Amino acid sequence: MQHAAPLAKLIDALRALPGVGPKTAQRMAFHLLQGGRGGARALADALSAGLASIKRCQRCRMLTDNDLCSICAAPARDAALLCVVESPADVVAIEQSGSFRGRYFVLHGHLSPLDGIGPEQIGAREFEALLDSGEVHEVILATNPTVEGEATAHFLGERAAQRKIRASRIAHGVPIGGELEYVDGGTLAHALAGRVSV
Amino acid sequence: MQHAAPLAKLIDALRALPGVGPKTAQRMAFHLLQGGRGGARALADALSAGLASIKRCQRCRMLTDNDLCSICAAPARDAALLCVVESPADVVAIEQSGSFRGRYFVLHGHLSPLDGIGPEQIGAREFEALLDSGEVHEVILATNPTVEGEATAHFLGERAAQRKIRASRIAHGVPIGGELEYVDGGTLAHALAGRVSV
Repeated sequence: MQHAAPLAKLIDALRALPGVGPKTAQRMAFHLLQGGRGGARALADALSAGLASIKRCQRCRMLTDNDLCSICAAPARDAALLCVVESPADVVAIEQSGSFRGRYFVLHGHLSPLDGIGPEQIGAREFEALLDSGEVHEVILATNPTVEGEATAHFLGERAAQRKIRASRIAHGVPIGGELEYVDGGTLAHALAGRVSV
Repeated sequence: MQHAAPLAKLIDALRALPGVGPKTAQRMAFHLLQGGRGGARALADALSAGLASIKRCQRCRMLTDNDLCSICAAPARDAALLCVVESPADVVAIEQSGSFRGRYFVLHGHLSPLDGIGPEQIGAREFEALLDSGEVHEVILATNPTVEGEATAHFLGERAAQRKIRASRIAHGVPIGGELEYVDGGTLAHALAGRVSV
């Protein structure tokens, strides 16, 4: 059946959300326009406010509503350690682990020439400027353990090496709490090759 | 870590969507504020437009941007047949089956006294007014095959019986294309009890 035009438009717009197909979008639209009208109003307002005020941190490209994000602005963070990640969600994940007190650099993606994502798009220029500032003593490359993530880490690691700045890659291996039986072969091979003395 | 206030607000607002938890909401917010800014703008606009123009059909309570929905306004539809469903999504599903040429009545829920949903909330008054108009010759009760859906169907069926209008319940049984082996016991019991001569 033909939906009313504004309803069809809303269903279509909801499909911009990641992981939302036509059926879920329809369910969301009906929900928002039935019981959830207060929530729909709040969502529209939050989207407008977010679009107007959220931008990238001038130093690390994390999403923020200030010139500097809360991490870059915090004097207690160690400016000598720079952790490079692919997305803001990675920053949140590492922060929640509570195991890192340095600063971040957010690539917003990984190198992927076929998709038109080159050094410019992942902020290589800003990254190199940061290295040239002299504050950074070690770059921790925490891109995803995928082919593109490894290639991106390699590319950025070389930029650090050119400046004689130490670059490290996060360890790959068996996840804590997992069972060896269920770990995939590639991870096991990494875990064996990267074994450490006890 | 602490998100910037507008970002935290957006993540919170996205949780109004059905089936969206904190982690998915964060992923959606990052997506909308990174690559998907055009989509975010379109979504905010579509939400505002939808809230302003989408209301309930005066006859059947389906969502529409007119006084009457496209089905109630179509002269070709049979006003003597009234199919009662719980949600607008049910109307869409039945319309897509192409097997019904009557009109609908949308309850927007089912009777659930514990949640404060009584006859008033499911539009019993409008339903009875529709029956009293004399157009309807048969009410097809197509509420969900759940305890609440059955109770709602029973309640509305009695309202029809009081007016000597025929009420029927959609058939319950084995789904077409399914295998008996994987059908649950309750459905099989219904299918056996409701067997028809061949």
